[in-house]
Amino acid sequence: MSKNVRVVVDAMGGDNAPGEIVKGALEALKTVKDLTLVLVGQQGPLTAELSKYTYDKQRVETVFAQEVIAMAEPPVAAIRKKKDSSIVVGMNLVKKKEADAFVSAGSTGAVLAGGQLIVGRQKGIERPPLAPIIPTAGGMSLLVDCGANVDARASQLVQFAKMGSVYMEYAMGIKNPRVGLVNIGAEEEKGNALVKEVMPLLKQCTDLNFIGSVEARDIPYGVCDVIVCEAFVGNVILKLYEGTSAMFLREIKKTFLSSVRTKIGALLIKPALKQTLKQFDASRYGGAPMLGLNGLVFKTHGSAKAREVKNSVIQCVNFSKQELGEKISRQIALQGADKAQES
Amino acid sequence: MSKNVRVVVDAMGGDNAPGEIVKGALEALKTVKDLTLVLVGQQGPLTAELSKYTYDKQRVETVFAQEVIAMAEPPVAAIRKKKDSSIVVGMNLVKKKEADAFVSAGSTGAVLAGGQLIVGRQKGIERPPLAPIIPTAGGMSLLVDCGANVDARASQLVQFAKMGSVYMEYAMGIKNPRVGLVNIGAEEEKGNALVKEVMPLLKQCTDLNFIGSVEARDIPYGVCDVIVCEAFVGNVILKLYEGTSAMFLREIKKTFLSSVRTKIGALLIKPALKQTLKQFDASRYGGAPMLGLNGLVFKTHGSAKAREVKNSVIQCVNFSKQELGEKISRQIALQGADKAQES
Repeated sequence: MSKNVRVVVDAMGGDNAPGEIVKGALEALKTVKDLTLVLVGQQGPLTAELSKYTYDKQRVETVFAQEVIAMAEPPVAAIRKKKDSSIVVGMNLVKKKEADAFVSAGSTGAVLAGGQLIVGRQKGIERPPLAPIIPTAGGMSLLVDCGANVDARASQLVQFAKMGSVYMEYAMGIKNPRVGLVNIGAEEEKGNALVKEVMPLLKQCTDLNFIGSVEARDIPYGVCDVIVCEAFVGNVILKLYEGTSAMFLREIKKTFLSSVRTKIGALLIKPALKQTLKQFDASRYGGAPMLGLNGLVFKTHGSAKAREVKNSVIQCVNFSKQELGEKISRQIALQGADKAQES
Repeated sequence: MSKNVRVVVDAMGGDNAPGEIVKGALEALKTVKDLTLVLVGQQGPLTAELSKYTYDKQRVETVFAQEVIAMAEPPVAAIRKKKDSSIVVGMNLVKKKEADAFVSAGSTGAVLAGGQLIVGRQKGIERPPLAPIIPTAGGMSLLVDCGANVDARASQLVQFAKMGSVYMEYAMGIKNPRVGLVNIGAEEEKGNALVKEVMPLLKQCTDLNFIGSVEARDIPYGVCDVIVCEAFVGNVILKLYEGTSAMFLREIKKTFLSSVRTKIGALLIKPALKQTLKQFDASRYGGAPMLGLNGLVFKTHGSAKAREVKNSVIQCVNFSKQELGEKISRQIALQGADKAQES
């Protein structure tokens, strides 16, 4: 297990780049052995940022890329045109096997497009999903797919389930992860056309701990470890969950500040409440792996600060050390073998 | 405006039937003039319950139905077989124009099936949606569709938008209601095949205040008054919103009870917090109208208590007094006329 992992970090992506990105990457270096960082970004800002820290120079490389892809740019066009952007240059290092993984807090669309167009799909993968890790009352769940490509086919959802299961087991350390399919009721006859098609396929997967339908109301409680759904539904779940949490916290804060009485009460409650809310802080998990590519692409929140970047880098190291790419390949090949046997 | 409205109430439906149902219905009678209640249920329990109250006997009728449809029964089969159930008997009164509306806290599936099979669709309505009213930080929104029929067509979503807009304007008193289409981003090119097909159709509706895409993260803040989506997505939104709220409240309550310090703090905060949470109490709005039928069918929560039943009955009265059925008919006919003009 002493394999050295090379993780490329997009120093220019996200709201807090390059400061928090560089800081977080260097923190990961302190936590994890066998890690070499490759920081990609504009020479001036990146060098200036690095000069603020003392670190093991043998374990940190820099690659300069003069362009930056902005959040609002049309993703595919940006990836095609900006050959000297941190995303394109960084992903090319993974493509050329000069690095194992790529982390970015930049434009989700550009990261997704680059993952497909530059890093490329693993053999046999129909569609690489984006799978954010969401905090729940039970710990965390992987929500797969939340990518940009909607209207998935049944066979793609089966692959999402398999890749998600491998990720949760080996990158996150959850034994025999429970896999659930998002549905609108537990009864057999419930569901849309896609769900009805996927359900029997997932039941046949003896390599999965498939628990059947999960209802959206049970997701916040951590009803399963891998939540499988099509990307439109996944996006709605991710954003509504974030939005509802944020809205309630805002309302509770307003309540705390509403009178002298509540302000005193809040002072007494705050330390314990902070502790409770910590478990729902998505930055603990770093963000979202994009699975099924020839190397890991890891999308961290646009608003990521150092701690989240650090956690993203650590997940990349786990992914690579556990040889998850190979494990996913084997799972998917198995699926092909099952099919071949059947016919 | 002195039209007398006859509202049928299913006295046997829901977790708290017949006690809370009868109580709530009689409370509505005190609040609203020009209302006659028709209570349907098993003779013994219904008569016993009514005997507990004094009320204007001229405004309360009873119709006895000896069967009860249980929550877990297959809906369509139950509606077909149990001809003497409160749902079937009650809906038949609406069908025969002997009543204007029907309220039930019973099985959602059975209410939806009965609405379609017994009360029947209004002329021109492709699919009658179930449209729960959800509380938000901005007030309330109508989420249409959350029914049992998924995989909707674009033309059906346009009708949902129109019916929802009429409902919010005339039953809930919101002037020029903002209509939004659930999407996974604000950009033009975002969305699944259905959303891309519906978007231009909704833009053409000059009779709607259509504000375009709404993202799930903005729903809890009350980004629009009518939230249009296909029923699978609607169900996920409704249940995740309820589930996330319930989970956070549970976690906060646990925090309040975690030490002597937090218990004291909680005592100080509780009155203000209760006030804040009141605005998110779904029972304020009674539940969900099923729109586009020959009479209003109103589904209230299975857990409904008296207040919610009362509010459901009041919405039925508003619906009927404002002649919403006729208004919906005109809107839909207009849509037909638009189409005819185009071709």
